[in-house]
Formats: sequence, C-alpha cells, structure tokens
Amino acid sequence: MQQAFTRFPPLRVVSAARTSPTQRAQQLRRLHRSPLRLQSHDSTAKRAPRVIFSGIQPTGIPHLGNYFGALANWVKLQRDASPKDELLFSVVGWHALTLPQDPRALLAARTTMMALILAVGIDPKRSTIFHQDQVQNHTELAWILSCLTPIGKLKRMTTWKTRLAVSRNANDESEVDDSLLNTGLFTYPVLQAADILAYGATHVPVGEDQQQHLELTRDIADIFNRTYPKPAPLLTLPQLMLTPSKRILSLKDPSVKMSKSAIDANSRIELTDTATVIRSRIRGATTDSIRGITYDPAARPGTSNLLTILAACTDEDVAVVAARYAGKDHGALKADVADAVEAAFKGPRAEFERLRAETPFLLRVAEEGAARARERSDVMIREVRRRVGLA
Amino acid sequence: MQQAFTRFPPLRVVSAARTSPTQRAQQLRRLHRSPLRLQSHDSTAKRAPRVIFSGIQPTGIPHLGNYFGALANWVKLQRDASPKDELLFSVVGWHALTLPQDPRALLAARTTMMALILAVGIDPKRSTIFHQDQVQNHTELAWILSCLTPIGKLKRMTTWKTRLAVSRNANDESEVDDSLLNTGLFTYPVLQAADILAYGATHVPVGEDQQQHLELTRDIADIFNRTYPKPAPLLTLPQLMLTPSKRILSLKDPSVKMSKSAIDANSRIELTDTATVIRSRIRGATTDSIRGITYDPAARPGTSNLLTILAACTDEDVAVVAARYAGKDHGALKADVADAVEAAFKGPRAEFERLRAETPFLLRVAEEGAARARERSDVMIREVRRRVGLA
Repeated sequence: MQQAFTRFPPLRVVSAARTSPTQRAQQLRRLHRSPLRLQSHDSTAKRAPRVIFSGIQPTGIPHLGNYFGALANWVKLQRDASPKDELLFSVVGWHALTLPQDPRALLAARTTMMALILAVGIDPKRSTIFHQDQVQNHTELAWILSCLTPIGKLKRMTTWKTRLAVSRNANDESEVDDSLLNTGLFTYPVLQAADILAYGATHVPVGEDQQQHLELTRDIADIFNRTYPKPAPLLTLPQLMLTPSKRILSLKDPSVKMSKSAIDANSRIELTDTATVIRSRIRGATTDSIRGITYDPAARPGTSNLLTILAACTDEDVAVVAARYAGKDHGALKADVADAVEAAFKGPRAEFERLRAETPFLLRVAEEGAARARERSDVMIREVRRRVGLA
Repeated sequence: MQQAFTRFPPLRVVSAARTSPTQRAQQLRRLHRSPLRLQSHDSTAKRAPRVIFSGIQPTGIPHLGNYFGALANWVKLQRDASPKDELLFSVVGWHALTLPQDPRALLAARTTMMALILAVGIDPKRSTIFHQDQVQNHTELAWILSCLTPIGKLKRMTTWKTRLAVSRNANDESEVDDSLLNTGLFTYPVLQAADILAYGATHVPVGEDQQQHLELTRDIADIFNRTYPKPAPLLTLPQLMLTPSKRILSLKDPSVKMSKSAIDANSRIELTDTATVIRSRIRGATTDSIRGITYDPAARPGTSNLLTILAACTDEDVAVVAARYAGKDHGALKADVADAVEAAFKGPRAEFERLRAETPFLLRVAEEGAARARERSDVMIREVRRRVGLA
C-alpha cells in the first residue's frame, strides 16, 4: 500500500476557470447519459462509465468499524473502477452540524479526515476528494429540491431518531422525541440528495442504514424530472451499491456496535493506534468459554466479532475464515486478528503521521478538490436553475 | 418622481475583487456594532447607521395592494434614510419556489420585478438591489442556521397554511393540511432569517403577517449567538419596522384582499394599467347605497377601501381624507381616487415601459447588485464558518 502514496505530489493544478461552450456541452451530454443497468461489482467490461459518489462525516480518527464501513470500501472502489469511471469522495462538514459539535474539534476533524482519506490510499489525481462545505452548489440545490420534497417523506425517515438517540447516549430511540430535533437533522436527507444529484452520480455505496435515504434521493430526482421534464430528464436516479455489511462490535460488550463515544477505550481500535495497543485490546476482547471457534453471531457474539474483523482485514468471506479456525482456540484467533489488524493499519497509520504535518499539501489537495467539485457541479446547477426558472 | 430616473446610468462599476485585510476588518467591526435602540422613523439625527433589508417575491406585475404593501415603502425608506444608512432590497426567487411556478413565468417575473423596483424610484447607486438566488451565501447560511432551529419553532409558524390556502384557492386554512406541504414551504422562514442575518440587518420593514417570521429570525440569531458567543455576539437581532398596514381590498368583493389570482380582472389595478383602465375599474368598484362618505371598514368595506387607496396615494391619514369627503358622494370620491392612482402610477409606468426594453442595462444592474451583496455577505459567512468550525 505504501507505494501508492509516493505518487501523490506534485498534483495537477486544476483550473477553476470557466469551461468553454464545447466543454460545457460535453459535460451536459454526460449528465444526460442514459440510466445504467444494475451490474455486479466486478463486471467492468463493456460497462457504461459510472459516477460514484460517497460522503463521510468528519468525526476524528475512525475506528475499525468506521474504517471497514467506509474508507476501506472507497479504496476497493478506486482499485476496481474502470478508467472511465468517475469517483467523488466528500468530507461532509455540513452534515456534521446536524448534531452539536465543538467547533475546534470539528475543524481539526475535517483536516484529519482529509489526511486519512489520502493515507488509506485514495489518490487525489484519480478521485475527486473535497470538503462538501466548500461547494455552495450543494446548499443551493438542497434548497431547490426541498421545494419539491413532500414533508411527509421526511417524516417517514427514521435515521434522525437513531442519530439523536446516539448523540444523547439514550438507551434506545423511544427515549428521544422531536422536541429535541433541529430542522437540519430533520431535513439532512435532502442535503444528502443534493450531494449525490449535483454530480449526476450513478452509483452510491451505502450501508444498510442509509438505504432509505438513497431511496428518497431517487424519489426526489424522479419528482424533479417529472416536474421539469424538458428537454429530457435531467437528474440521474442513482443506484445503490450495498456495501458488504461489516458490523464491527465493541470488543468489551459485543451486544453493541463499536463506538467512538463508548467510555471504555479498550472497546475499540482506532486507525492510529500502535501495534502494542492493538495487540493488548484484541487480547482483552470479550469472547466466551466455549471450546473451539465457530461463527455464530447470536450465541457467540464476541468470538464472531473477532472472525468478522479478521475477515474484513484479509478481505475474505467470514465463513472461510471461520472454517480455518474450527480446531483452534481463542488465543490463536486473537493473535492472528491482532496481526491482521496491524498489517491492515500499519501503512495508513505511518502515512497519516507523515501527512498530518504537511498542512500546505493538505490545504492544496482540499482546494483543488473543491475547485474540481465546483466546476463539475456548476454544470448541473446552471441547468437546474434554467429548468426551474431562475436563469 | 421622473427626475429620479435620469440619475441611473451610468452605474458605478462595483468591483467583485477581494477586499483588503483592512477593509475586511472594518466590515467585521461594522457587523459587531452594538444593537440599535428602537427609534421612530423620522429621527435621523444622532442615530447609529441602520442596515435595512427587505425582500419581495417575483410575482409579475404588482397590483395596488402589492405596491403599497412593499415597493412604495421602499421608496419612502430610501428617501428618508440618512446617508450612512445601508439599504438592501432583494428579489427573492428562491422563496418563490416554495409554491408551484411556471418556470417561464417565473423567469420573466424576476426581470419584471427588477425593472419595477428601478421604475418606482429605487436607485441602484444608493441601494443594493439584487436577486437573492444569485447569492449562494443565503442558502449556505440557511443550512447552518437550520441546524440550530428547533423544528417545533417552525411548526408554530402559521404562514405556510395561509400561503398553501391561497395557492390552492381554498376558502380558508382549514381546507389545507400538511399532506400538501413541501419541505421548502415549511422551512422558508429559516431561509428568510438567513436573508436578513447575512447582512447584519438592523431593521426589517414587514407587514403584520410577517411579524412572527421576524420574531423567529431574532430567536435564531439569539440561539446562534448563545451557541457561539466568542469573541462577541456575531448576529444582529433585527428590529421590526412595522409598515403601516394598507390592506387594499378587491374592488369587486371588498370582503377579500385584492389578489392577482382573482378571476375577475376588474377586481384589481396593476401598476402597468393605463389611465383608461384605472378610471373604468375604479368607477365600477363595489361600494354601498349609503349617502355620504364615511370611513367604516366593517359596515362600509367598499367605500372604506376607496378611502384607503386614496390615502395611500396621497400619503395622508385615512381619517383626514375621509373628513374631506364627508359631504360628497361616491361619484366624486371615485373620480378623485382614479386621478390619485393615475398620478401615483403614471411615472413608474412610463419608466417601467422604457426600462423593460433595456435588457443589457437590467442585467448589469442585477449583476452589480449581486456582486455587491456577495461581497457584503462574504464577510459574514466567513465569520460564521469560523465560529461553527468549518474554517
């Protein structure tokens, strides 16, 4: 993985200058490209070029669960994409504001996340990496789309309850109600739709918990296209790329997800933890007293969680991994899990430590990414303005 | 009024270039200026400079009610402002999208409204006239503020019901419910707050129906200031300038307001109607068969409406006007009302006809206004970003 990073500097300087009419016509044609059929992930042959969009909140250093839930998938997407596919990865600062944030921590987390994206191997020459909050087209499009989004559709979204419950350390969603709800947390699925639709994204990798949001994005795009049908449907209905659900659990209490807000730091492993910390936390992970190793999430959550982590690190099927450990004991499994996590994190960790000191470089990557995203979404927002009667 | 227009071209070219650090420091100091005491409208002496913001929807040609409800007040504000007062007048296209619009009609209405603002005597050298939808800072700030606005506060707003009822030609608000409500119509008070707060407006002229929105704007500003208090409260809590309520009623059915959507065109007078049309419609206005003229809106709505129109045109108190007509009949009143409306509309109408053909000039006014509004609100949005942790 290390060798990927030497390709970074010097970056191509992305011009923010106005595109020529010809270029704009080409870009517009690209926006109008016919919808793709759903295709399996590895069939790159004869496939229409994809536009893949994904966002991640600036939450500080990701733990194992965050890493395998998002960043690790981005690396695979970039690796497996055909050369004509377009990849856009965004740090979504405006979404972070839907829950209370310490401003200094948020500012630091934005930079950290940008450095981590680079550290895991996302190449800013290949992929557009940018801060959502530096591209105002997103909030403009969100406003325009909000005027077409029935409020009933937002009421049916359940994610705000989950996010509110987590942010309040509530035991479950019944402990929160909409007296605690701010308007941003209620309407953020519309901003999310704008994030995606502004680039004509054809594919959006999401976890299961975000499926209803992508469904809403498609709904909103469809309403827009039916309201403003001429000369041809403008917004692309994005397809779901369901990322393999890697639900990584707490190392100390495998009845809950690994969480950055859990009080016991030994319950999680973060991307910047040292080999010693990794080894110690895996060794201290809660398992069970049943002999031998089997994958049985219901009866053996702790043991199964270790198998899930190992399978995620080695990119294998968990059943294959479990079979290999059938006759072994927890000690052997834990040793191998620790080795696998260290092997997966070692390169990104070193690269992150190197990059986090390179502030000018990080700023330049962010600036160039935002300029590219702006130039890209300008085409769409100009056409949206024309359709609705504002230009 | 006519002579005001000869001052228009050539316009000062407003530079959109970046301001110097010194200028920016000055602008920032201006944002932090201490809140003004509520002062009567005409006490310009020793008053701290005001920042007055007002918006109008692009609704095509305004009728008498629209004219005296907004544009006529703007002209007075500009006339009575002290030289240090800042005036910002905005055509709020994004708000228009909260109800269904025909895109072509909306586009035309935007230009028409810009021409009308100039035609009634708003001077683009003195006041900043701009299209809201050309300044993305508004939607960005609206998003950030929405994350601080409890949804309960929006639920208590009643204006969406009124607007929905009007747009659906419902008899009253009980005929509409939130199954017809789109998210934009529900959240537009937050965008309105952003419109105002982006410029540190100290004064906002509003009619009675918008009082609760201005109260919400103050609430939101206060929440922001308490959430991000350092180094000093950033957002100015704007003061209400309650504009004299000139409720102009339908000429045909004085139980309802004059409306551009009423089927009977004889029920309204529009700013571009000719002297002949004005005279004919006033002559045909519904009054009553009571002898003599008195101002009694409950018992004599039609007659009182004519007195209201006359008082609005001559800028007198309606009681003074009514006293003058005590011994006269409806014929005399109608003749004078028609003369007064014609006198009030003649100048703006001619100027509007002249301006509507001058597309390049109108475009230049809009561009320069937007550049000025952008430059002005950039200072605020940059500081807002810093406060919340996005910059």
